[in-house]
Amino acid sequence: MSTLPLDHLPELLRQSPYHRLLGLEMITVAPDEVVVRMPFRADLVAGDDEAGQYIHGGAIASLIDTAGDFAVIAAVGRDVPTIDLRVDYLRAAPKGDLLATARTRKAGRSLAVADVEVTDEAGRLVAIGRGVFKT
Amino acid sequence: MSTLPLDHLPELLRQSPYHRLLGLEMITVAPDEVVVRMPFRADLVAGDDEAGQYIHGGAIASLIDTAGDFAVIAAVGRDVPTIDLRVDYLRAAPKGDLLATARTRKAGRSLAVADVEVTDEAGRLVAIGRGVFKT
Amino acid sequence: MSTLPLDHLPELLRQSPYHRLLGLEMITVAPDEVVVRMPFRADLVAGDDEAGQYIHGGAIASLIDTAGDFAVIAAVGRDVPTIDLRVDYLRAAPKGDLLATARTRKAGRSLAVADVEVTDEAGRLVAIGRGVFKT
Amino acid sequence: MSTLPLDHLPELLRQSPYHRLLGLEMITVAPDEVVVRMPFRADLVAGDDEAGQYIHGGAIASLIDTAGDFAVIAAVGRDVPTIDLRVDYLRAAPKGDLLATARTRKAGRSLAVADVEVTDEAGRLVAIGRGVFKT
Repeated sequence: MSTLPLDHLPELLRQSPYHRLLGLEMITVAPDEVVVRMPFRADLVAGDDEAGQYIHGGAIASLIDTAGDFAVIAAVGRDVPTIDLRVDYLRAAPKGDLLATARTRKAGRSLAVADVEVTDEAGRLVAIGRGVFKT
Repeated sequence: MSTLPLDHLPELLRQSPYHRLLGLEMITVAPDEVVVRMPFRADLVAGDDEAGQYIHGGAIASLIDTAGDFAVIAAVGRDVPTIDLRVDYLRAAPKGDLLATARTRKAGRSLAVADVEVTDEAGRLVAIGRGVFKT
Repeated sequence: MSTLPLDHLPELLRQSPYHRLLGLEMITVAPDEVVVRMPFRADLVAGDDEAGQYIHGGAIASLIDTAGDFAVIAAVGRDVPTIDLRVDYLRAAPKGDLLATARTRKAGRSLAVADVEVTDEAGRLVAIGRGVFKT
Repeated sequence: MSTLPLDHLPELLRQSPYHRLLGLEMITVAPDEVVVRMPFRADLVAGDDEAGQYIHGGAIASLIDTAGDFAVIAAVGRDVPTIDLRVDYLRAAPKGDLLATARTRKAGRSLAVADVEVTDEAGRLVAIGRGVFKT
């Protein structure tokens, strides 16, 4: 219940075995916005043939869940579980780093809502997501 | 475009580096339902403290995306990209194997919709998901 | 906060001006499932040209929200606000009555989740929906 | 298939019996953004007791579906069916006019995605929505 200082959030993110598995790292953190990067790794790729040479949608969903979660953590000062998550894939994500920018749209007593945008190295929007979190 | 025989689907699933990263494996496959397992691994866990000892929601979202995708592949006979994905987390998923059962609700000329249910080792429902895929 | 008896639910549904505007009526109610009908009315139609001769998606979303809400009311015994709602339109809904069958998938202390299926007069599935409600 | 001029959109919106039932009217229209108003009417209210004195979530979902749809129509120049719709209710919408501002996030050859924000008369955000449309 005690408030988490913002400068502790990058370490909190790294403490998760799953975040380390995907290589997620926090780039910037502010009360109203966080940026999380998923550096390119060969094992995030969807398929091993030519048609599958893009980042797997599940990895992108994981990035969105994490970035949204940390946007809410930054806003409310404590860890929060995800209630539901939605992801819209706008284009295939080419092999390369992905950047998720997450903003809290609501931070109420019982619920929070965060919006997340994911861009590729060329700055193109590859996916957008929205999550509800229990505060 | 050529039809994929059902017995090729377990291998198709394993061909994805991302599926191998998470350890996903196909258990059963039929034209109207597939079951995918995510065996427990320590690196799927959300946090390293006591409060984080459950499977990360991003891993569950990945499992749901994959199972839904393969339900549609089983129905239409070719690989299909995800258009959008939604996940409802019903309870924290305890450390252990997770099983995703996916069924195609619609398989049209341009779009398909799949429903996915995820259960833990005790058979309790931990999450439900729904995805739209481009056929 | 007092528990609502199940046989009061049809009247509770009719008490809403918006439900009366759309003509919604409760057909059956049980602790785990409710059925709500939206009888055909010309003013539920999407367009006035030939291409628009189907029930408007907003009317279907309203039917799904209401049926899901009442499934949760039947389960928890009091009125509950909708947190979020999702609707997948599987086929154009022809002019005619629509029937929504709603089931509670989770009814927890703070949240409930309901699934809704909408069928046309021929029994074909025209839409599926899912909602999260604050209990 | 022929392109719809933007100045025809307010009339196209009024041609829908369902839009007239709810009283929807187009306020502004541009290739990248449309604004639709739902003027207050007593029959849009959720309940007839004190606790129900807010705009029904189904009416708000209808407003979001319509505004998103017309944002895509403005972008692609022809009528488009909704594939799926999601609504997050951020606060109870007080009795009064609601304004939906919709923007197209993607307008591809087969699919479009639109984001919608709904504000009350005080300018507060009451709901946000996202829809996928078939282009």
